[in-house]
Amino acid sequence: MIEIQVTSHRQVEMIDISAKVEQAVRQTGITDGLVSLFVPHTTAAVTINENADPDVVRDMTMEINKIVPFNDDYRHMEGNSAAHIKSTLVGASEMVILEEGRLCLGTWQGIYFCEFDGPRQRRLLIKVIPG
Amino acid sequence: MIEIQVTSHRQVEMIDISAKVEQAVRQTGITDGLVSLFVPHTTAAVTINENADPDVVRDMTMEINKIVPFNDDYRHMEGNSAAHIKSTLVGASEMVILEEGRLCLGTWQGIYFCEFDGPRQRRLLIKVIPG
Amino acid sequence: MIEIQVTSHRQVEMIDISAKVEQAVRQTGITDGLVSLFVPHTTAAVTINENADPDVVRDMTMEINKIVPFNDDYRHMEGNSAAHIKSTLVGASEMVILEEGRLCLGTWQGIYFCEFDGPRQRRLLIKVIPG
Repeated sequence: MIEIQVTSHRQVEMIDISAKVEQAVRQTGITDGLVSLFVPHTTAAVTINENADPDVVRDMTMEINKIVPFNDDYRHMEGNSAAHIKSTLVGASEMVILEEGRLCLGTWQGIYFCEFDGPRQRRLLIKVIPG
Repeated sequence: MIEIQVTSHRQVEMIDISAKVEQAVRQTGITDGLVSLFVPHTTAAVTINENADPDVVRDMTMEINKIVPFNDDYRHMEGNSAAHIKSTLVGASEMVILEEGRLCLGTWQGIYFCEFDGPRQRRLLIKVIPG
Repeated sequence: MIEIQVTSHRQVEMIDISAKVEQAVRQTGITDGLVSLFVPHTTAAVTINENADPDVVRDMTMEINKIVPFNDDYRHMEGNSAAHIKSTLVGASEMVILEEGRLCLGTWQGIYFCEFDGPRQRRLLIKVIPG
């Protein structure tokens, strides 16, 4: 298992970690298999989406903040219930196929660490299963 | 593959199954690899989120019930369309990294079986891939 | 890795690809392990849900279109931001357990390719890890 560090700078932020993940996978020496990505936090997530036009990420965070409002009769004293809900809707894990040393992402796809309760210092766990 | 049983007692309920999953994984004797969790039902899901303050789970179920209302011009005769939609948004599968016999969950993370159309007797499938 | 083709005919559409996935998995000759499904597109997704009553799929697409409206102060010039957001909420990957040559789906479960910005010609990547 490899662990990479992610630093968020805003409360809600999608951070492109594709290059970091690729580098970590390369270090394992495994060229074919499955790459499992896991966020060990309860107010963050991982997703795969467009990394060409930055407006996509802007629209995504704007709309997700609307779908799950920051304030809505929540009882959790820490005040970050919205972040927990976003984490579960987007998901704490993601899986990418590895072939001939290359992550099989689509042309426009990047891997994003989703911060929903930043800014914070975060971790992402990576496990590569050969096959 | 291992199968565990989950009994829900309410219509919408998040049930902490971390201990059950850990026990099932231990029985396989595998200490390193990937643990795949799968819900073989169309009105339930599996997620990973905070298991410290019970208000988080309360807030999550409350808000998910708002985002996907129980009644909304649905046509499905069984009357549980909201549960199907929640199942797809949260997801039927989850993946956890296993290292030295330990599930690599974050400090505050627990594994939750999400019941969206209970109360019912449910199953969760677990497959451990060594690696 | 195997690649299957999916043709969508509407803007938003859930297409049952269970039979195609089963056939692709059979071709690998692997009978036990994990089947990883990956959508290499940023405006589509993959999910597992009911394939008995077609009203379930109708209700799901109707409601997801309400939760993530087609127009909502988005800035992305291509005009398909809603599709990107739906893709991240439903998810680009899914995982199914394989046992004795059979996908371990529940009685009512089918695998759906979710088109959110069609009609288009699409691809789905499948990787089977034995174990």
